[in-house]
Amino acid sequence: MSDIDLLDLPLVLLSNRGPVSFDRDASGRTVNRGAGGLVSALSGLAEHLDDAVWVCGAATPEDAAVAGENDGGAILVQTQPTPHVVEGQPDGPSIRVRLVVTDPDAYADFYSVWSNPILWFIQHGLYGRSLAPVLTRAEHDAFENGYAAVNRAYADAVADEVRSRGGKALVLLQDYHFYLVAEHVREQCPDVVLTHFVHIPWPGPDEWRVLPGNIRERLLRGLLGSDVVGFHTRRYARNFVLCAGELLGLPINLDDLTVTVNDRVVSARYYPISVDPAALDATLASEDVAAHMAMLRYVFLDEDRQLVLRVDRTDPSKNVVRGFLAFGTLLDQHPELVGRVSFLALLQPSRTDVPEYADYIALIGAVVAEINAKHTKEGRQPIDLRMVEDFALAVAAYSICDVLMVNAIADGMNLVAKEVAVVNRRGGVLALSEMAGSHEELGEFAVTLHPFDVQQMADALYTALTMPMEERHRRLAAAAEQVRTHDVRRWLNDQLADLRHLAGFS
Amino acid sequence: MSDIDLLDLPLVLLSNRGPVSFDRDASGRTVNRGAGGLVSALSGLAEHLDDAVWVCGAATPEDAAVAGENDGGAILVQTQPTPHVVEGQPDGPSIRVRLVVTDPDAYADFYSVWSNPILWFIQHGLYGRSLAPVLTRAEHDAFENGYAAVNRAYADAVADEVRSRGGKALVLLQDYHFYLVAEHVREQCPDVVLTHFVHIPWPGPDEWRVLPGNIRERLLRGLLGSDVVGFHTRRYARNFVLCAGELLGLPINLDDLTVTVNDRVVSARYYPISVDPAALDATLASEDVAAHMAMLRYVFLDEDRQLVLRVDRTDPSKNVVRGFLAFGTLLDQHPELVGRVSFLALLQPSRTDVPEYADYIALIGAVVAEINAKHTKEGRQPIDLRMVEDFALAVAAYSICDVLMVNAIADGMNLVAKEVAVVNRRGGVLALSEMAGSHEELGEFAVTLHPFDVQQMADALYTALTMPMEERHRRLAAAAEQVRTHDVRRWLNDQLADLRHLAGFS
Repeated sequence: MSDIDLLDLPLVLLSNRGPVSFDRDASGRTVNRGAGGLVSALSGLAEHLDDAVWVCGAATPEDAAVAGENDGGAILVQTQPTPHVVEGQPDGPSIRVRLVVTDPDAYADFYSVWSNPILWFIQHGLYGRSLAPVLTRAEHDAFENGYAAVNRAYADAVADEVRSRGGKALVLLQDYHFYLVAEHVREQCPDVVLTHFVHIPWPGPDEWRVLPGNIRERLLRGLLGSDVVGFHTRRYARNFVLCAGELLGLPINLDDLTVTVNDRVVSARYYPISVDPAALDATLASEDVAAHMAMLRYVFLDEDRQLVLRVDRTDPSKNVVRGFLAFGTLLDQHPELVGRVSFLALLQPSRTDVPEYADYIALIGAVVAEINAKHTKEGRQPIDLRMVEDFALAVAAYSICDVLMVNAIADGMNLVAKEVAVVNRRGGVLALSEMAGSHEELGEFAVTLHPFDVQQMADALYTALTMPMEERHRRLAAAAEQVRTHDVRRWLNDQLADLRHLAGFS
Repeated sequence: MSDIDLLDLPLVLLSNRGPVSFDRDASGRTVNRGAGGLVSALSGLAEHLDDAVWVCGAATPEDAAVAGENDGGAILVQTQPTPHVVEGQPDGPSIRVRLVVTDPDAYADFYSVWSNPILWFIQHGLYGRSLAPVLTRAEHDAFENGYAAVNRAYADAVADEVRSRGGKALVLLQDYHFYLVAEHVREQCPDVVLTHFVHIPWPGPDEWRVLPGNIRERLLRGLLGSDVVGFHTRRYARNFVLCAGELLGLPINLDDLTVTVNDRVVSARYYPISVDPAALDATLASEDVAAHMAMLRYVFLDEDRQLVLRVDRTDPSKNVVRGFLAFGTLLDQHPELVGRVSFLALLQPSRTDVPEYADYIALIGAVVAEINAKHTKEGRQPIDLRMVEDFALAVAAYSICDVLMVNAIADGMNLVAKEVAVVNRRGGVLALSEMAGSHEELGEFAVTLHPFDVQQMADALYTALTMPMEERHRRLAAAAEQVRTHDVRRWLNDQLADLRHLAGFS
């Protein structure tokens, strides 16, 4: 991990889900380590720093038990995978973790009322505003007793860790669960240097006007407790600065992307998150992936056939229904493709307790049945819809698809596009929504999709499927180069470099 | 009309609905004159200028017949009300009108597919984006063969009138039906001085991304054929400039609200439209209004009771359902008001052929029935819902209401608030959505409503109903003064002053 710049100050991280979670089986306490680029990048950083701590939520009863045994303080956990907890000082790389326990009702209001769906819906533009949301006293109460109370508890834990490190530390806060934390931490520890990174889109002021006036102002003022508010794209950073100007009346500079709050200058910056190419390369080389790849080739790619792929959660923001409508339009308008092009959709059911999400899954099923009923030829269905979460299967499909479809109506970044850029070996074409954050980086190598325009998406799929192989490989190589030189470590290093600069160390 | 500045250049006006429309009864051709502040202000201007012409659509078969008899050219029509058309040169004030006839299918695509609902929905934020809109080849075709074709026909008529006036004229274009006209007119007549006024909200760039890329670019480039793009509020003007920067990549200046297009500088300006106070005063003094007023007092205002009023079309953007939910919440939380406060809603059914609008009316009925079932006391229903359009009844209600509710989720201006400010005689409180354009002018005299926040609206209604009478009268007087000094003639004069300046006459 020598390519991550080490720091001159102690480091305090905060995210809702942490790097580890505890459970219990017949033989005792077990530990599960989080997956994904963010956790591995931040863990890689934290395990090289003696004085780092990661504050996160106690997600299981066993997490709460661990927190209780340590009086809510931080514990040291091995980061190498061993199934069971080793007593005493761990050998090898380890990370200090502080698990925050909050009241279950408050957490439910924080997580299942405000973070999801309200903030998620606002930031992805999912409300049909004529009827939703209807904000009542219940939502106001859930904000005070849930979102604000849980934010206060996490902020107190962060401030406590900062104080125990002499009151001066670099603090990295993650995502839409914690918009109120930065301001609270700064009040208690005025010497912190603080970045809040927002992993989902940030819309313009009008979208935020859907929230009650006092709540949107508190969220913005909370975030402005940071020195840097980080986003994936320039567009989101710009929207944030516009919000500060329009909704709070603060002085802004749109060229520098800064907001002046009393005597402080807060910067909006953009750091596109990315993947870990080495880890992807290793997964691609695994036997598991090879077996899936052979199966997929056999099913989808004999006799000069082609494969369109999508891999998404069944979140309405992912726009699965219009994606299938576009594929149906493609087959309607280019009958020569029927029987020659398949669409494999690996969808992970998500938040099925939210009615809009459950309805959306039903609609996906309906449109797939309709298109398959119309266009099945010689026993081959055009769409293969699989409700599974299987990373090895996904990577196998990434490597052999002809086209990846990402047609989200809003998507903070979309890492699937970057994963495909790294592992595809077939000149796969990225068909990429202009509303996905990754379009700002990869759009020039992709075929752009307009996610509300079914005809345009059908035309773009046709362009991708009929693109000369040489151009496909040229574009893919350029996209892969962009991702490999802008990996998740760079995402982190760029933030740290800015913080070091702000803290006066460079 | 001496308070409208006369011009040094010929004037060409364009709007979809014009100042007159022809029909036929047993005794021959009849003429109907348009009502409302816009038509009367522009008519008042045009009838004082010998060389003015108003281009508009042929709305009836008789309009088309009139246009045909004159080979599509302009005709002179009396502006004083006489039921029948007088042959020959009219006496008294008159106005030159050019009726544009277009293919009915093209007009249907222009009006009933693109202007309403698509542009209306986009600009009022009404789409629930996870499912709507679904833009297909049909919508693309309707844009080309409808919106673009009809815009071209109207632009040709405008350019023809400009050329017949020596190629130099002031051109005033109206509203969202004609976003492509300015560019076409400028191509044909480079010396025009042109304002396009947009009467509905202008949202930020992300909202416009719902449209196909090529279409949103054409709409923006079309508008940028103007010298001035006029809006009701600073917020809309700012959003327009942001769109030019973000969606077209043009250089912008957000402080000056300008966009640079090649060698031209296009200004976004805001001119809040208003009412004609003298006409309202005259209506208020009429016998018809007096009779309605007596009836309303008898029904709603005996024994120290209070009246909340709303007057709206049943457009989902008007937010009628959440308005009633807020009133229901008020009665739930303040039972002492049950039987003491009534809510009179005068709603004009609108666009009932659009499914979303028909569904919305059903929902209004459902929520009213529920609240009335719960809170009827001593035979008095709390909500009196009347689906009528009766201006005299509305003015009578304006004059005696205690609170006017305007809680639109988006509304270009909302003139009802200004009408009430002028004619109310009871210290009526304006309860005004922050999303209505009129809030930028009248917000400081009003009680602000957050239209998605039912609890906040209930609290605001309570504040308004319990406000001391002295403060009510003070606020109302200040609002009335603002409207009387910023009437519809001022709206027009401010635009003309800017055009005169651009044309080098001041």
